[in-house]
Amino acid sequence: MKESIKVFAPATVANVVCGFDVLGFAVNEPGDEVIMRLTDKPGITISKITGDNGRLPLDPKKNTVSVSVEHYLKHIGRNDVGFDIELNKKMPIGSGLGSSSASTVAGLFAAKTLLEDRTNASQLLPFARKGEEMACGHGHADNVAPALLGGFVLIRSYDPLDVIKLPHPKGLYCAIVFPDVDVPTREARQIIRNKIQMKDAVTQWGNIAGLVSGLFMNDIDLIGRSMKDILVEPVRSMLIPDFYKMREMAMEMGAVSFGISGSGPSVFSFTRDEETAKKITQKLQAHLTSIKINSNTYVSTINDAGPRVID
Amino acid sequence: MKESIKVFAPATVANVVCGFDVLGFAVNEPGDEVIMRLTDKPGITISKITGDNGRLPLDPKKNTVSVSVEHYLKHIGRNDVGFDIELNKKMPIGSGLGSSSASTVAGLFAAKTLLEDRTNASQLLPFARKGEEMACGHGHADNVAPALLGGFVLIRSYDPLDVIKLPHPKGLYCAIVFPDVDVPTREARQIIRNKIQMKDAVTQWGNIAGLVSGLFMNDIDLIGRSMKDILVEPVRSMLIPDFYKMREMAMEMGAVSFGISGSGPSVFSFTRDEETAKKITQKLQAHLTSIKINSNTYVSTINDAGPRVID
Repeated sequence: MKESIKVFAPATVANVVCGFDVLGFAVNEPGDEVIMRLTDKPGITISKITGDNGRLPLDPKKNTVSVSVEHYLKHIGRNDVGFDIELNKKMPIGSGLGSSSASTVAGLFAAKTLLEDRTNASQLLPFARKGEEMACGHGHADNVAPALLGGFVLIRSYDPLDVIKLPHPKGLYCAIVFPDVDVPTREARQIIRNKIQMKDAVTQWGNIAGLVSGLFMNDIDLIGRSMKDILVEPVRSMLIPDFYKMREMAMEMGAVSFGISGSGPSVFSFTRDEETAKKITQKLQAHLTSIKINSNTYVSTINDAGPRVID
Repeated sequence: MKESIKVFAPATVANVVCGFDVLGFAVNEPGDEVIMRLTDKPGITISKITGDNGRLPLDPKKNTVSVSVEHYLKHIGRNDVGFDIELNKKMPIGSGLGSSSASTVAGLFAAKTLLEDRTNASQLLPFARKGEEMACGHGHADNVAPALLGGFVLIRSYDPLDVIKLPHPKGLYCAIVFPDVDVPTREARQIIRNKIQMKDAVTQWGNIAGLVSGLFMNDIDLIGRSMKDILVEPVRSMLIPDFYKMREMAMEMGAVSFGISGSGPSVFSFTRDEETAKKITQKLQAHLTSIKINSNTYVSTINDAGPRVID
């Protein structure tokens, strides 16, 4: 049995523009790393966190990674062992890219791998949701599910939990830009309207059905024309600097789609090739710099595998 | 060039429980028949309508079939010819089974076949919608599109019109029961709420995405558990005698799903075999008879071809 392991888990884009609260996908970059050491003393400790600018708690009762791992350990009845966790944040916090999910999933995958436990990715989902519950007040699955399973994931239902992995066209690239402004998840949820027009809901679910069809049919045009959000984006985009200007720029450069990742402020485009994705991130970053906003950019293919052992 | 032709077009189930206004599919039974004669005198006449108990107008300006065909003729610029139409209603009117769509699609398909015109099924859709506009006040496509194209059809968007044909599992049977009570389409639409809760819309679009995934994945279980409607069915079911009792009976007999066809009052179940479909229709019909309501029943596979020449 190994004593120590290093695991990577991917960032995720929830909602995928038209699939508010039910769709998400994983990317190969960015992501988080967790180094986990198995101890024979029960209990979980966090010895080190890097890359968080001191924003994340070392207290294992308050950290999403340790809380999720503790729920998992309890569930499988292993009160004879413990873990020490080192968390390396390799992606921004509060970016709308599933930062807490990436850490949590890396932690859970490290723990189950160290214990040589056969619990599979889907079965880890309830424990990962415990982390989300603490991070944003609700056990959403649209980041943790794709982070765990990889690829595109549909959360058909929460009660009972019903998660379906969807296919996607090969060669789809994702260009991500994180404008470094503060959009807390809780607040981003609160500005969404509780009541909506039936006719708008019909438009939205026509698009969701179109996006899902496009993923199965390898039809990138259909994916692109389905990725419209008339319900959430009009509100959340107000918290993102020059959102519509950035969309215009991305679409002009040949993006398949453009929208908000999760609750923002990160935005993302699908493209048909790496070249276009790179051009888009460069241009949007230059624009954000010109309006005095720092940003991080990422270009990546879709992550199909979920978390992986890297050392 | 043939002078006369007989065409069958299928009944259709719109909404498919969770896909209000965006999904529909065609069945092999029931359906309507149109006999059309090409004349060298411009203009359209309706010489005979059978099976409608005198409910449909012989006036070509008021009949959905002739109105659609007239729009089509005008569009292709054939003002040198005319048609005489004989319409044989082989299915109940006002049943929620796309009765007017079946007639209209049969008429359009007969006309284009007689003229040896290459206009394809998708291109006929705008003319068929003209008929729907007259029949129910709005040019819905969730009956005419599956009647024309066959199979399952998604109407992703109305403006611009974007129609996608979806696959379906082989061996899926449809059991249909039409309780002979009056539920006019216009009124059935009016009782639907204009404003809905965002959280209910999220539940609904998770189910639509699940149903579409199930169709692509040949996953009948997923299709069944996705076919729930928390927005429209609770209201429309009030117009259908013993709706929930019939659901209970169908599900107990092994139905994959149970719901309202279009705006009702017809109800339908998917089943995995013909035997179960037959049992369900017999049992539901016996129940309706016991509460003094006449009914028609149909057991059918999914119609994949749309309209067809039968003579």
